[in-house]
Parts: sequence; structure tokens; C-alpha cells
Amino acid sequence: MVIGLLGLGTIGSGIYEHLQKRGDIKVKKILELKRHPGFEDLETSDFNEILNDPEIDTVIELIGGLEPAHTFTVQAMKAGKNVVTANKLMLSHHMEELLTLAKDMGVQYRYDASVGGSIPFLYNIARHRTADTLTELSGIVNGTTNLILDIMQTDGRDFDDVLKQAQAEGYAEANPAADIDGIDAQCKLIIGSAVAYQQYVRPEDVTTEGIRHISGRDIIYFKQKGWVCRLMVQSQVVGQGVITAYVEPTLVKETDMEAAVRLNNNTISVTGEYFGLHTFQGQGAGKDPTAFAVELGLRDILDGITPRFNPIPEGYAQVDNSKAGHRYYLRTDAAVEVPVETLDKGVYITKPMSVKAMHELAKTLREKDPELFFAGIRE
Amino acid sequence: MVIGLLGLGTIGSGIYEHLQKRGDIKVKKILELKRHPGFEDLETSDFNEILNDPEIDTVIELIGGLEPAHTFTVQAMKAGKNVVTANKLMLSHHMEELLTLAKDMGVQYRYDASVGGSIPFLYNIARHRTADTLTELSGIVNGTTNLILDIMQTDGRDFDDVLKQAQAEGYAEANPAADIDGIDAQCKLIIGSAVAYQQYVRPEDVTTEGIRHISGRDIIYFKQKGWVCRLMVQSQVVGQGVITAYVEPTLVKETDMEAAVRLNNNTISVTGEYFGLHTFQGQGAGKDPTAFAVELGLRDILDGITPRFNPIPEGYAQVDNSKAGHRYYLRTDAAVEVPVETLDKGVYITKPMSVKAMHELAKTLREKDPELFFAGIRE
Repeated sequence: MVIGLLGLGTIGSGIYEHLQKRGDIKVKKILELKRHPGFEDLETSDFNEILNDPEIDTVIELIGGLEPAHTFTVQAMKAGKNVVTANKLMLSHHMEELLTLAKDMGVQYRYDASVGGSIPFLYNIARHRTADTLTELSGIVNGTTNLILDIMQTDGRDFDDVLKQAQAEGYAEANPAADIDGIDAQCKLIIGSAVAYQQYVRPEDVTTEGIRHISGRDIIYFKQKGWVCRLMVQSQVVGQGVITAYVEPTLVKETDMEAAVRLNNNTISVTGEYFGLHTFQGQGAGKDPTAFAVELGLRDILDGITPRFNPIPEGYAQVDNSKAGHRYYLRTDAAVEVPVETLDKGVYITKPMSVKAMHELAKTLREKDPELFFAGIRE
Repeated sequence: MVIGLLGLGTIGSGIYEHLQKRGDIKVKKILELKRHPGFEDLETSDFNEILNDPEIDTVIELIGGLEPAHTFTVQAMKAGKNVVTANKLMLSHHMEELLTLAKDMGVQYRYDASVGGSIPFLYNIARHRTADTLTELSGIVNGTTNLILDIMQTDGRDFDDVLKQAQAEGYAEANPAADIDGIDAQCKLIIGSAVAYQQYVRPEDVTTEGIRHISGRDIIYFKQKGWVCRLMVQSQVVGQGVITAYVEPTLVKETDMEAAVRLNNNTISVTGEYFGLHTFQGQGAGKDPTAFAVELGLRDILDGITPRFNPIPEGYAQVDNSKAGHRYYLRTDAAVEVPVETLDKGVYITKPMSVKAMHELAKTLREKDPELFFAGIRE
């Protein structure tokens, strides 16, 4: 196996170090705009040098973002090269095209590292499907927001304060929108659901709310109620070709398993008709854990296990979030009619209502109160 | 694939139903002493009818116990048949012989279902080893004792009372010794450690204490301290060819992940140098979950994935439990010198001491106080 590596950032240097240590997989070229000391002989700014090198059979794409990652991936596959990626955004937006192209070209496409970092989640749900029918996914799949929520809850600090610390320490991006608005989690739910149910999911169909508006004041009420707030993804098969799929802040009990998922860790649960509920936990990001996930993909390609991992979904799921529902915590200065319990002025618990109804209500109320915050309550 | 099924008990009827539903794997003969209505054409009391049937390529061994399961497994492999098993006792006592025989005969031997029921633990640690070095295992691997401990803690009831209920409801055996004395957990630790570290482990080397002597009185002190008691297995690489390996009641914090493992569920964690800590949770026993694990083994054999799963350990680990240690909770009427804190008359917390020293001390003290109970305290 001879590698063309796209990107020598944190993950890229991690996988490079792993492979050097092991010695049996050669990195021949690295695509990078800038030169890194000691890598001058490997680095190139021209993707064509990788694309047109017949010795390179596998491309590791760690550029991130939609372009040029998408174009490079398509070109690599069309040139007959395997592709291994950690790019959840690009994959979730081009999943049908990329899986179909990989199949048509007879190349291997491994995206284990795109969901849950090192946690072998996608691989296992693909394997589980060989002996069971999967019906539900849920979990904490964004480490940055979990770190922020965990510190807020533990130290009683406010959102902006903790976010700034996370940014300073490298746990949050300078532009944190993809994490704190739930977009990163949404991408992972799309990919996981496609593998679990064998149906593609359109990003615009996944009702998504992040944690941008949570405040230290909310945490006080959560503690009174014995709740812990986590940003969770959830999808469930509710009919033939119909699923629910949403991302929202969720209040779990202090003794629930998700409350024990601390700092930037992830947890993902899957339900099957036979095996019941399985949960996978671990580090969802970081240099070595993600490089490990990329390397597992390479080892599976070498051992010929990949074709089983890449069944092609049969079409697009119909997403209907009117079919999922629960009570909500709602903090808003706007006038509302839904509450059945008032915790304080402008702080409510609603009656059970659908995910669709609550997210639409929040959108309407935000015209008057942009700082509104809400979270689903897990019963 | 044509199956000879040994045993039509709970798991056996579960896997039979799964395979009938799917239809692509045929069960040709079932070894059973008694006849089950509707199965008369399949059932035989003579193993030779399976052994000598050239059409049967795979034997599922669900008899349990050491014999005749061991002899039948050896005979099946020598006849060139694959074997799939859930028999942790037999495997943990004959692991070297069976893995070597499977390799020599070129047959597949799958024992996924022997540890953690449906939880894909052995498979994943075998796969993880392809890209990392594993250094530690720990977890709750016996559902019966977890159910008993969970009910004792939640309802404040005494051990004998809860055990009787568990027996009446089918969660504990009429002879509960294998579960409550930690033998079942010990077998699973032996198998898991062999796969993780590629070293066989001798049963007599695994220091093992069960929960037979826990009382409702102990739970009162645990609650005062914010602890929850779980029967845990633990092993760790501490040197070249040297590991620690032990089973003992363990006190975790109420907010720890293991405290959220309720009823008869299992959790197993594995540590790797690169990926960090991974945890797998789910149902560790039961008809459908275990049948699911057996079927995953069959599917892997069909898909040719098994050879990678069965590397042969290189030798036996040296187990040294003087290299693991922590504080202990100790309740005994016997006179002791170790405590640094006295919670009540005869109820102590020790200074940090080795696992080896504590288990030896308990053995000595039990000559005077057979009802002595102790539990490790996780720091």
C-alpha cells in the first residue's frame, strides 16, 4: 500500500507518525500549501502529482471542508485509487455520489474516522447489520460542545467564558459555529443513519439546534431538577422508509450514562431488534485517536474487509420529526402558551410536544427573543 | 453453510429461530438428549451423526460446561468442521489447545459469544490490535451479579433476598456459585486478556473474589460515601510478558460510568496507546443477544473475516498482582491491623495495598470470620 496524504495538520501528522513507526505502509507524497521542516522531499502543492502517480494506490483525505476535498476525492476514485477520510462535512453532503462512485470504480472508500473519532462505531453498525435490523441511534458525537457543557455544569460558569477557554486551549475552533450550532453533530447523524438504515439522509431534513444560547442561569435550573445537559443526536425508524432525525440539547438524569460522559468524550448508542441496546464510548477527536481510526481503515483495506463495510443505501429516507416528541425545557422572554410548569419568570417546562413543533415554535419566538434557549427532556 | 447445533436450550433455540428467519444458513441436525415437539426430524442423541455428516461444515456448541463440550469441539475440529461457541468456561480452560488445533486444521473457531453476550468486544479488541497496542482491560462482565448488586443498592435489600428473587425470575442459576463467586467473570477476563495481549492466562493465576459475602449493611456505608458496588474484572500489562489480572467487588463513584450500568447489563473498557479508552456496553446475556453474537460469528466465517480474528497467542502471561493496588473497604469481626479509617465497629477503609496482599489477608482472616467482605475502592 502506497499513500498520498492530503493535509499534514494534526491528524495528518498523527497518521504519518503511526505509519512510520509500523513501517509496512509507505507515505509517498503529501499535499500541503506550506513546507514543513523535514518533509520537503514528500510535500507538493500540486494534487496532480499524487493523482498521476501510478504507484500511489490509496489517498488519505484530511483537508476537511467541502472543496477542494470533494473534487480531489472524486478525481482520486476515478483514477482507481482507494480513499480514506475523516471529512464528515463533505461526506454527509455527497454521500450518494461518493459511495456510488466507489462502487462503480471498484475502489475502497473508508470513512470510519468521520464519526466518533477513534470509536469503531460505523464499522460495528455496518457489521451488526449482517445479523440484525437496526432501529435507532442516539448519542453525544461532538466533543467540543460536550466539553463546554461539562465545564459549565461542573464549575457553574457561563457559556462565553467557557467557550473562550476552550478556544484558547485548542478544543474549539476560532470560528466555533460548526460545533456549537450542531452542524458537526448533524453531519455525523446523517452518516451514521445512512449506514444503520441503508438510507441516505438530506442535511436540510435534520432538525438541528445547538448550544449557542445556553447560559449559566439555565444550569442552575438543571441542577435543581437533577438534570445534566448534553448536545445529543437522535434518529429512529418510525415506518417503512420513514425516520426521525434531529440534533438538540437534551436533559438527561444525573445518574444516566450520558451524564458520565465527561469532557470531550463521545458516546453513541444503537438499538437492534435482536441485540437490544449497544453503546460505544471513547475519544471522539484528537490527533492519535483519529489517526488510529484512519489506520484501521487502511488495515481493513489491506485485509480485504472493506467491501462488506460499504453497502450502498437504497434511496433517501423520508424524515418526519412530528413522529418524535417529549417535554421541553424552555427559557424565553417572549410570551408563550405551551408551558405546563413554570420554574421561574420566563423559564418553563412544556407539555410533551413533537420535535418538529418545538423547533418551529423556537424559530418563531426568536423573532422576539433571539437569546431563547430550549432543551429536550429525556423521560 | 450447514450447521450441526449442539444444544437446543435458550440460546440454541434463539439461534435456530434467527437462522430460520434469514433462511440462508441451514441447521441440519441438533444434538439433544430429550426431544422437542416439532424438532423430532432434526434431533439426535448421538454426536457421531453430526461428526460423520460430511455436509455439516460448522458446529455451534451451546452445551456449556467442560465435558462433553471439550471433546465434541476437538472432534469437530479434527473432522475439519468450523466451531462457533458461547462456552467461556471450556474455552478459558483449553484456550491454547483449541486455538492451536483450529489453526493446524485450517478451520475457523469463533468464540465472540463467550464474553459479553451480544457486545462485540472480543471482535473489536482483535481488530484494534491491528493498529494499536492494548495495555488494559476492565469492566462488568457478569450480568447476574450486576443485577443483584444494582437491586441491593437501589432497594436497600439484603443479598440472600435478592438472590432468591433473581433465581425465581431466571436471572440466576439454581446453583449460583459460578456467577456470585466470580468464576464466570474470571473466565471472561482470561479470554479477553488473551485476545488483547496475545498471551494465554491460567485460571489459577487470576485472583478472584465474588460477592457472596456482601450484605445490606455494607450498602449503607457505600451510600454514605457516595459509592456504588460493582463486580469488576481488571487486567493490565505491567511489564514484558507480565500482567495483573483479578476479579473483585469494586466501589466506584455514583457519577462514574459503571454506576450507570444497571440491572443485568455489561460494560467493558479497553485502553490502547493511540486510541485511549474505549468502552462497550450492552446486554451480556439472554436468548436473542447471545444468539445475535453467535450469528455474527457465522456471518464472519461466511464472509471470510475470521482468520484475522484468530491470531495465536505466543505463550503464557506471568500474572503478578502485587503490581496492582488501591485502598479497600473491609468488613470483618476479626482483628486487623491495616485500617487507616474506621467507619463503624468492624468496618474499615485500608491504606493503599496490593491486590495480592488484600486477597491473601482476606483468606487468612476468613479462618476466624467466614462472612468477611471486602471491595476495592477505585480512586
